[in-house]
Amino acid sequence: MTDSLNYKASSEPTPACPGTFIAFEGGDGAGKSTQVARLRAALESAGLSVVVTREPGGTEIGEKLRSLVLDHGQGTIDARTEALIFAASRAAHAAQLIRPALEEGKVVLCDRYIDSSAAYQGAGRGLGIESVTDLSLWATENLLPDLTVLLDVPLGAGRSRAEARGAADRMESESDDFYASLHATFGRLAAANPQRYAVIDGTGSIDDVHAAVLAAVTAHLKEVA
Amino acid sequence: MTDSLNYKASSEPTPACPGTFIAFEGGDGAGKSTQVARLRAALESAGLSVVVTREPGGTEIGEKLRSLVLDHGQGTIDARTEALIFAASRAAHAAQLIRPALEEGKVVLCDRYIDSSAAYQGAGRGLGIESVTDLSLWATENLLPDLTVLLDVPLGAGRSRAEARGAADRMESESDDFYASLHATFGRLAAANPQRYAVIDGTGSIDDVHAAVLAAVTAHLKEVA
Repeated sequence: MTDSLNYKASSEPTPACPGTFIAFEGGDGAGKSTQVARLRAALESAGLSVVVTREPGGTEIGEKLRSLVLDHGQGTIDARTEALIFAASRAAHAAQLIRPALEEGKVVLCDRYIDSSAAYQGAGRGLGIESVTDLSLWATENLLPDLTVLLDVPLGAGRSRAEARGAADRMESESDDFYASLHATFGRLAAANPQRYAVIDGTGSIDDVHAAVLAAVTAHLKEVA
Repeated sequence: MTDSLNYKASSEPTPACPGTFIAFEGGDGAGKSTQVARLRAALESAGLSVVVTREPGGTEIGEKLRSLVLDHGQGTIDARTEALIFAASRAAHAAQLIRPALEEGKVVLCDRYIDSSAAYQGAGRGLGIESVTDLSLWATENLLPDLTVLLDVPLGAGRSRAEARGAADRMESESDDFYASLHATFGRLAAANPQRYAVIDGTGSIDDVHAAVLAAVTAHLKEVA
């Protein structure tokens, strides 16, 4: 089994939906939440119907799974268990929230999606990018984003911002090597999938980053149903 | 992808362990809990060190996942989410409890294991026996039982016993077709994997069934470390 980074080619195509699915990826502190909020406001001002959601979580069962993994004090969680819990949360998210919203013609903005699992569990935890991606593709019945926005900030900058926010959860208290591996993996995934990735320099002002995100997203919006 | 029932052949071999891993399968009300308790007593009387466990569950994180799925009132859980939660529970179970006990030379008796997922989620929920089995093999790093004891009782008999126990959980309140599919799948799995299956008629007295189980298990016990 090769550790393929370009998984679109080997999976069944995502069934066409009238809506547009946009995922945001990047390390902690890259500015995803801020940019998702700015983008939502801009798209709604343009008259679009927007759903904002996040992973892990997004549904009742997904939020429960999220807190099982992210909270401290759960005892040991090995890498495969963690990957399967994230995949379970994603399965519920795709089936109950994302796909129905896309079928109604909405724009779905999702803070983290499949590529976060590829980076965190596949590369960071050493389970293999392809195995973990296959798991997510099975979980979601091959629901891939129309566009993935990668907010790229240098390793140190993102971590400083994340640490300034306060106490770290279980995923945020990892080693420097772990973060370096994530950062490299997001870059490789973007390079291998240019047709569905927009890599945005996240080090500029919030306004500048927003303008770049909006330009990338506008180019990918489908006709509104 | 063929819906293969004989999955041992296509997976990596389970690394040799000094202990013996015995799974019990069968529908609800087949007598698994009773026979596991009787077998444990018999093996302990013979001086063996025995660990009894169950799926889903068996670990702290696994018990939390178990109650997420089995309790009513969790909102909708689609089939893939359910299968992934069971696989997550099994991953923790294999890594934290079953494999360490086997490495210490113990006999592990497990009430339900991979073939329950093959039957319930693969056949019963229509996800495919092979897909669901592959998920479990990935979750457990290919940890298969040395022997699977299938307690076989006619469909109606098992359900009557289970219903006599009281309120049904989420998995126990399914249709007759669902149970018929489970029953057929366990039979097919046993027929396809005779080297690791013992099919025991579960309709006899508790003593008679115990004697048959003990004979089958004794033939599979490894040397005690």
